[in-house]
Amino acid sequence: MVMEAPRSLRKPLIVPHKVLMGPGPSNCPPRVLHALSQPVLGHLHTETTKIMDEIKEGIQYIFQTRNELTLALSASGHGGIEAVMCNLLEPGEKVLIATNGIWGDRAANMAQRYGANVIQVKTQPGNNFTLELLENALMKHKPVLLFIVQGESSTGVYQPLDGLGEICHRYNCLLAVDTVASLGGVPVKADEIGIDAIYTGSQKVLGAPPGITPISFSERAKQKLFNRKTEVKVYYLDMKILGDYWACFDKNRPRVYHHTISTTLLYGLREALAMVCEEGMNSVIERHQKCADQLYKGLERMGLELFVGDKLKRLPTVTTIQVPNDVDWKDVTAYAMKTYLLEISGGLGPTANKVFRIGLMGYNATPEKVDLVLEILKESLDYSRKHPKAKL
Amino acid sequence: MVMEAPRSLRKPLIVPHKVLMGPGPSNCPPRVLHALSQPVLGHLHTETTKIMDEIKEGIQYIFQTRNELTLALSASGHGGIEAVMCNLLEPGEKVLIATNGIWGDRAANMAQRYGANVIQVKTQPGNNFTLELLENALMKHKPVLLFIVQGESSTGVYQPLDGLGEICHRYNCLLAVDTVASLGGVPVKADEIGIDAIYTGSQKVLGAPPGITPISFSERAKQKLFNRKTEVKVYYLDMKILGDYWACFDKNRPRVYHHTISTTLLYGLREALAMVCEEGMNSVIERHQKCADQLYKGLERMGLELFVGDKLKRLPTVTTIQVPNDVDWKDVTAYAMKTYLLEISGGLGPTANKVFRIGLMGYNATPEKVDLVLEILKESLDYSRKHPKAKL
Repeated sequence: MVMEAPRSLRKPLIVPHKVLMGPGPSNCPPRVLHALSQPVLGHLHTETTKIMDEIKEGIQYIFQTRNELTLALSASGHGGIEAVMCNLLEPGEKVLIATNGIWGDRAANMAQRYGANVIQVKTQPGNNFTLELLENALMKHKPVLLFIVQGESSTGVYQPLDGLGEICHRYNCLLAVDTVASLGGVPVKADEIGIDAIYTGSQKVLGAPPGITPISFSERAKQKLFNRKTEVKVYYLDMKILGDYWACFDKNRPRVYHHTISTTLLYGLREALAMVCEEGMNSVIERHQKCADQLYKGLERMGLELFVGDKLKRLPTVTTIQVPNDVDWKDVTAYAMKTYLLEISGGLGPTANKVFRIGLMGYNATPEKVDLVLEILKESLDYSRKHPKAKL
Repeated sequence: MVMEAPRSLRKPLIVPHKVLMGPGPSNCPPRVLHALSQPVLGHLHTETTKIMDEIKEGIQYIFQTRNELTLALSASGHGGIEAVMCNLLEPGEKVLIATNGIWGDRAANMAQRYGANVIQVKTQPGNNFTLELLENALMKHKPVLLFIVQGESSTGVYQPLDGLGEICHRYNCLLAVDTVASLGGVPVKADEIGIDAIYTGSQKVLGAPPGITPISFSERAKQKLFNRKTEVKVYYLDMKILGDYWACFDKNRPRVYHHTISTTLLYGLREALAMVCEEGMNSVIERHQKCADQLYKGLERMGLELFVGDKLKRLPTVTTIQVPNDVDWKDVTAYAMKTYLLEISGGLGPTANKVFRIGLMGYNATPEKVDLVLEILKESLDYSRKHPKAKL
């Protein structure tokens, strides 16, 4: 070998135990971490396909759907957006993207790469969409797909979905919903609402590691997929072939090798789903909402102002807080991280430099953790006010 | 909730400790498994980006390249093929794909999805390509990219690469090499050969879990990427944005959030690379070749015939063995799995039903494991001959 082995890899791996209370990833529960260290299995071993079946059932439960085409993508949440766009859009087709933060913009970027005719309907960051506004846009543009984010983690905004499926279907439009940051914090009832494509993040409320993304397509979406005129561009995300690997179409047909799935990530997701199932989705949601209320009250006591004024528009899992004028947000979050290894995040996209973001997700959505993050935020703000030039 | 939590997830997760001696995944060493259970970190935390830097250096070392654009994709090895195709091809461009097994066909499938003009040059499964044959095809077709597999794991064939970069560049063609199954078993010298795009599998010789894929693009490939007329279709695999996240272009520029990387998989890959660095690539390769020789001798003693007759064309990491006429391959592999939890695989694609495949990779490439797999194969063959109708 001409090149020698790098010296940096001679050092041991050191991973600090942080408390992740930004918008995600959140901490995995010990049970999930333990599962990750189990030995790798083959991608078609019976134990693996059994775990895949269990995961499928778990995903159907968390989304409240009976969709056959339900599986986990071997990709991060971004792969979820991408899978929706590349499977459900063909070149030249119109897609309507509801944009009130970074996720809508990112979805629009992906959709145009696949040659779709992208139309964005926008509201102010911090606000959500009324049914009326969306219906008018559907009427006007007649898209084949509406993409909307239930939990805009860049702004901390919750988007109610009641009635939206019906309206979409009235205009012959599929409804795709991003629940990456919202699932487990607010009710998600895919079949009841009439959602046609839905995905979520593994590393938020669920408490699994990132890198694997639960996704589900309705019968309507499946029909669109199977009646495409052009092939899905991305083999890796082609839901037709993935559906065959996950035995979504015919349980008796032998599974077809598509890619080498990461059993490591399957173990983590399986255990995370099992924990959510044990607690029950209603209890999970209630716990998150109670914790969010506790957080709001604590923040108000501290004299802080929330970015989303209307409580009904707030996402319980990600709270955005106006940065007070007398501090630099970076100093505050750096103090919390350096002193307590606790993560509070800054803004992103439209909220960059304007807000703190506190995540209450899964393992960290407990009254004790809310108290902890409030105390540390207060101390960090105090420190920053007293030491405005401190470089941490 | 209308739907109740599935009962299947009430049971505990049970993962057997198997010996994986098929074509991959292989077993992760205990050090790697332990690393996987470390707490998740944020995708832009300093500890995470430090690990990413270390991984980058480790990948440069295993590929023997100084390429700046070197990183790990958040996807399985299939994502590696896909990343090559979607980044380096534009609609209508010609790609030449050397096909002597399943991987060439799969690459061709992906390339045509991106609208490339796909030309396949073929040899018989079990054989590899001469430089002359490849040069003639380059001369005739004038493609912008040649894709070739160094280790065809479906047939157990090794493809030498000496001189190929020079020939490709003479015809103004980029050279992309799949080293998923070969890296660590045979020398891979990306810069010396003049490889422009290279990737490998994490779950083979390296001994990391699947789901993360080392990849590297040369300066030439980078130029092609940056001079594209059309956008890369797949945001998730866009090497320009990924390169920014991995700080491949300018170390002083702040990293840009692209997707939530799986720190879990980073830990595993980091430790796997560290172990390879400690042993040294030359020693790793020598160990694999010695083990392969030991395997060949043992198989010959048992009267078995290798699928690849010419020893120089054999891939040390994956050995293909003709299934004897008097047994059903499925009975043999099922006996080994059921009795010893040891995986020996059947064929794939052109070798389906024709061969056994034995993998000697990473943690399992030791003289003891070779003896083990030989003993168990012998016992399994004997059992199948004595009990031809046994249903396992």
